[in-house]
Amino acid sequence: MNVSDSQRNFRNHRVVLAERPRALPGVEHFRFDDQPVSEPGDGEVLLETVYVSVDPAMRVWMNEDPGYVPPIAIGDVMRAGGIGRVVESRSARFPVGALVQARLGWQTHPTLSEAQLTPIDLALGGPLEWMGPLGGTGLTAYFGMYRVGAVKSDDRVLVSAASGGVGQVASQIARLEGCRSVGIAGGEAKCQHLTGSLGLSGAVDYKSVPDIGAAIDDLLPDGIDLYFDNVGGPILDAVLERLRPRGRVVICGRISQTGSESLYGVKNLGALIGKRARVEGFIVSDYAAEFDTAREWLSARIKAGELSQRLHVLEGLESAPKGRGMLFDGENTGKLVVQLASA
Amino acid sequence: MNVSDSQRNFRNHRVVLAERPRALPGVEHFRFDDQPVSEPGDGEVLLETVYVSVDPAMRVWMNEDPGYVPPIAIGDVMRAGGIGRVVESRSARFPVGALVQARLGWQTHPTLSEAQLTPIDLALGGPLEWMGPLGGTGLTAYFGMYRVGAVKSDDRVLVSAASGGVGQVASQIARLEGCRSVGIAGGEAKCQHLTGSLGLSGAVDYKSVPDIGAAIDDLLPDGIDLYFDNVGGPILDAVLERLRPRGRVVICGRISQTGSESLYGVKNLGALIGKRARVEGFIVSDYAAEFDTAREWLSARIKAGELSQRLHVLEGLESAPKGRGMLFDGENTGKLVVQLASA
Repeated sequence: MNVSDSQRNFRNHRVVLAERPRALPGVEHFRFDDQPVSEPGDGEVLLETVYVSVDPAMRVWMNEDPGYVPPIAIGDVMRAGGIGRVVESRSARFPVGALVQARLGWQTHPTLSEAQLTPIDLALGGPLEWMGPLGGTGLTAYFGMYRVGAVKSDDRVLVSAASGGVGQVASQIARLEGCRSVGIAGGEAKCQHLTGSLGLSGAVDYKSVPDIGAAIDDLLPDGIDLYFDNVGGPILDAVLERLRPRGRVVICGRISQTGSESLYGVKNLGALIGKRARVEGFIVSDYAAEFDTAREWLSARIKAGELSQRLHVLEGLESAPKGRGMLFDGENTGKLVVQLASA
Repeated sequence: MNVSDSQRNFRNHRVVLAERPRALPGVEHFRFDDQPVSEPGDGEVLLETVYVSVDPAMRVWMNEDPGYVPPIAIGDVMRAGGIGRVVESRSARFPVGALVQARLGWQTHPTLSEAQLTPIDLALGGPLEWMGPLGGTGLTAYFGMYRVGAVKSDDRVLVSAASGGVGQVASQIARLEGCRSVGIAGGEAKCQHLTGSLGLSGAVDYKSVPDIGAAIDDLLPDGIDLYFDNVGGPILDAVLERLRPRGRVVICGRISQTGSESLYGVKNLGALIGKRARVEGFIVSDYAAEFDTAREWLSARIKAGELSQRLHVLEGLESAPKGRGMLFDGENTGKLVVQLASA
């Protein structure tokens, strides 16, 4: 048997799903292994992973039936978006050295086909920007705010988990549209980041205020036109009571409910009637045909210094499972990224 | 002081709000009185009430702050839609004998101005049809299904309180659009009416099935595209789990929650994310500019024998407060109307 160049040079280190979590995912639900790399066939490339993402949505992907995406089999590599560099190519479109964005998974050396790759246009931004505001979290914020939330310049906007990956961009879009923009985050440092660097109108520290409703009233005394919700739970109830006529609630995530023993019951949906208001969920991949347009917009704002996203970068594949736990404890300061190789 | 003709001939018997209910309204929250009629001024008419409506929404109107309409003051006549006949007129548009639709209130002889009156076009339907399918409940069903719910011919549609005033029309609109149409109602007789006279695809008797979710699965095994919700509560949770992609929940009412000691908490809003689904409330008066168009459509369906609405007619003003209780016990069979004078 011949040993290929790729097999000689690389092994693929992976984090695979060992067990489905019932509540919050811990390191015990993952297993590390390494394997020979898959040699690329026609139209395929072997990649060296540079960055992979750690996102709240991954908890849903670990379920037996995630609903909107196929499940991850036990023993399969953990699904994750990321950026890689082509190290061996049998594709004319993606030569050795090219940087690409793809669903790489938590592994060092995936082999993927051309159709799975998005070329990275460095004119729009560098690799870390493609992991952040030009990546899945930035696009999620963009389509959630514009398409689902239909943000308008006179809206009073509230964003939960506003210092998280999606929340930072969503709340800055509100500011850029001229809205009164208030973010909810946990802890004084995160709140200072929101009103300081990100320039929001106000921030609510949900960990320190005695009454979240009263704290919202202080900053948005006339109510809420648009709530971009990343957390669910009792804050959503407080918001429903405070919606303005034709108010919109964009349900992007519900991290407060992830891994809960029992789900929180939302009591104030009746407010939707008199307010003629709506609550709507979405999945960013439905807007894939418009990603290029959105990235152009986001890139222009980043270059103008009007939009930024703080990233929290961990080093090494072994830190990925631990990163998952940080998300649910709110220990991350910004969008979580794991770096596996130099950019 | 001169006594006018109207004051000589009529006294205005009224049901006024005596006390705001904390939970369900009972007869003790109303008081009967009678007064001299108000003599019509320029552009006003004195009406003899023929029919008045008894609707679930009235419970909200009795609150100190209903939200989308002004409150009813203690001692004021109970607000209600109805049909009256002009008995004295100082309006060229509405001569003596004319039938009009208006917010008459629970009283025998209101005096109203032209701007408060809708002329009744008997070519579209008779007075009872104007109280029912051409009235507020029919219009609510029409705009809820078409505008808010965006009903399409291949939708799987579920309607709660399907044998109630709004529900009957909403579920028949689903049938007319070619949808699979399933109604939820309490009791075998109501369910037989839904699948018999109203021609729905199926009916769920929520009072007799052990598991509402399983009963829905039997009739809508592929899930629900459009849920027209008049009741709220645990049925809404069962529906959220069963929504199809891009599913819509139209929140028209929540009678199951009216007067409850504690509101039911809805746990399954997270399903909106993966399903890209929405929950939306509405108020029919927002569509007033299009009422004529809707009535033409409804009238044509009624005349073609494709649409009907069973009304439950009580006799005499004194039965109005008791009728309120029937709504919440589900004792009414169809839209509740009180007749005060011969049509």
